[in-house]
Amino acid sequence: MSKQILILPGDGIGPEIMAEAVKVLELANSKFQLDFELSYDELGGAAVDKYGVPLADETLERARAADAILLGAVGGPKWDAIDPAIRPERGLLKIRSQLGLFGNLRPALLYPQLAAASSLKPEIVSGLDILIVRELTGGIYFGQPRESKVLENGERMAFDTLPYSESEIRRIAKVGFDMALVRGKKLCSVDKANVLASSQLWRAVVEEVGEDYPDVELSHMYVDNAAMQLVRAPKQFDVIVTDNMFGDILSDEASMLTGSIGMLPSASLDSNNKGMFEPCHGSAPDIAGKGIANPLATILSVSMMLRYSFNQVAAADAIEKAVSNVLDQGLRTGDIWSEGCEKANTQVMGDAVVAAL
Amino acid sequence: MSKQILILPGDGIGPEIMAEAVKVLELANSKFQLDFELSYDELGGAAVDKYGVPLADETLERARAADAILLGAVGGPKWDAIDPAIRPERGLLKIRSQLGLFGNLRPALLYPQLAAASSLKPEIVSGLDILIVRELTGGIYFGQPRESKVLENGERMAFDTLPYSESEIRRIAKVGFDMALVRGKKLCSVDKANVLASSQLWRAVVEEVGEDYPDVELSHMYVDNAAMQLVRAPKQFDVIVTDNMFGDILSDEASMLTGSIGMLPSASLDSNNKGMFEPCHGSAPDIAGKGIANPLATILSVSMMLRYSFNQVAAADAIEKAVSNVLDQGLRTGDIWSEGCEKANTQVMGDAVVAAL
Ligand SMILES: CC(C)[C@H](C(=O)O)[C@@H](O)C(=O)O
Ligand SMILES: CC(C)[C@H](C(=O)O)[C@@H](O)C(=O)O
Repeated sequence: MSKQILILPGDGIGPEIMAEAVKVLELANSKFQLDFELSYDELGGAAVDKYGVPLADETLERARAADAILLGAVGGPKWDAIDPAIRPERGLLKIRSQLGLFGNLRPALLYPQLAAASSLKPEIVSGLDILIVRELTGGIYFGQPRESKVLENGERMAFDTLPYSESEIRRIAKVGFDMALVRGKKLCSVDKANVLASSQLWRAVVEEVGEDYPDVELSHMYVDNAAMQLVRAPKQFDVIVTDNMFGDILSDEASMLTGSIGMLPSASLDSNNKGMFEPCHGSAPDIAGKGIANPLATILSVSMMLRYSFNQVAAADAIEKAVSNVLDQGLRTGDIWSEGCEKANTQVMGDAVVAAL
Repeated sequence: MSKQILILPGDGIGPEIMAEAVKVLELANSKFQLDFELSYDELGGAAVDKYGVPLADETLERARAADAILLGAVGGPKWDAIDPAIRPERGLLKIRSQLGLFGNLRPALLYPQLAAASSLKPEIVSGLDILIVRELTGGIYFGQPRESKVLENGERMAFDTLPYSESEIRRIAKVGFDMALVRGKKLCSVDKANVLASSQLWRAVVEEVGEDYPDVELSHMYVDNAAMQLVRAPKQFDVIVTDNMFGDILSDEASMLTGSIGMLPSASLDSNNKGMFEPCHGSAPDIAGKGIANPLATILSVSMMLRYSFNQVAAADAIEKAVSNVLDQGLRTGDIWSEGCEKANTQVMGDAVVAAL
């Protein structure tokens, strides 16, 4: 039976970069006889416009039924002033949570061809290859109770709750250790155990899981120190595992170390490795519609999908090689362009990857 | 009446760097006729050793009675295994909270003489001068309830609470705006209002306070983006105001951009500008007792004390000039040393500042 891929282009530059990624996916589909069937729907602002909500029930059902989901990006100023309950991001959070996509893999990889794009000195970042494993369906993002209210004295106050259970920590820790096993065998768990009760449990459970992974060198780091060490000496890290909020912050910081966030894909997996795949960057409303966005992160998300959800290693490798090939040719979108390279728009870049593949 | 200064050397390198800062303080005291009276006590691990708790009641009383507090640093492996309730950091958190030191000022300033020490490219950080204003007595650091428990199914779980009230946000926002007024007139408030209820209130209240500051250009940024922008283009920031946890992470990241966290002081102020002053760096147990730590952050904390708590602008400026002078002479402790400079130990560095003053 053929595999169902649900495509959610989203907002802003989403449709433009997705068009290129789909070309690559279609080619891989026939070339490697993957037997994929593609269907399309909306998420985020585009879904608000079409359905009145950022994730319609029917879209969620389609996502449940699909074998994998490819997402562009969501959000934009058009929906900034709407009711917070139906903001574009709510659709993203809901699909993550409803599909149980707790394991978020965010590589921060420096492409040697793009070394100059980093704001860090070359010796600090050359060869950088970190994987951040972020817990994606728990913690303060979804913790209850959360409320905004008016106190008796008339003052407003609001609060959120940061909860973690042993099983939530255990399953994400396992993802971290499993990833470390097939990479550099080093796992750094990041928390704030000197302050937070949830972090103390986090650290204890990660330690316990570590007993099953004698070959992985486990360390712990406070989040403030991690934010510092990522700037000071990022190559000390192999795999970092951390909670939802810390992972949000640190993965963005780490991706920016490479200077080319337009290159970085991500995967969000459930316990059966079914997943949603999307670029790390956002919907970039400022350049939407201009045809100049970098489609490579979305194309590399296709590669992650093939690797993690379908175990199609050859096809995944081929796409990554094609991307590297295009960089070798000197083609660059504006975000990664530097002196001596050839400026390419979104479509030229996508076509070049197709040609290289 | 003379002003009372309470000196808390703390742990690790604390006593060593404090000895140098006190030399500078004593000299400023006589030179500028400040009429300061110094007394000493313990905080953190040293207090655990002496009193059995990281902040003794009598120390807290002394701190309350003092006009300002100068702190070295707390913590170290010696106390890593003790009861979490009396860990050294608890003393720090308690003194902040009990004295109402809600306004934490953390400058991230690149000394031109040390430009080479940054891991970022010179053009990205040269002239960097950011002030991070961190809320220090609220949020998830102190929120109740917080608990660790065993669920009915036998699973452990733990949670923390992140609360903010309107008045807490208002007073720290004011500090942010006031600082921006006397600096570059730009304030960036950092939150996660697309996810957190507390951040939505934060953003709303900061907006309201902003109405009283028409001359300050206010912007808002999500914390993940801020972590990215600090790496990409840190000079876009003037003053950043943010909550306790985000401020912890971002101020460490920002300080590391300068490459010389050993140079950065901080102030924690109450609503009357009474405050505690301490270096941004930690107790560095690995180099404690060797006499090689950089005392300049503590010396510059003395300058912040004179400036913010005692309005002794001339004396504060003189100390800063003396530090800059010592850097011009080419003297460097190991943490900021680079080719062509002269290596100096803690005491040589302190004496040089005294001489320059
Ligand atoms: C859009 C936002 C809710 C989201 C998050 O915070 O998780 C984004 O920043 C991300 O990292 O995917
Ligand atoms: C020691 C620790 C509790 C403290 C904090 O998190 O506030 C420290 O990191 C700081 O930033 O002063």
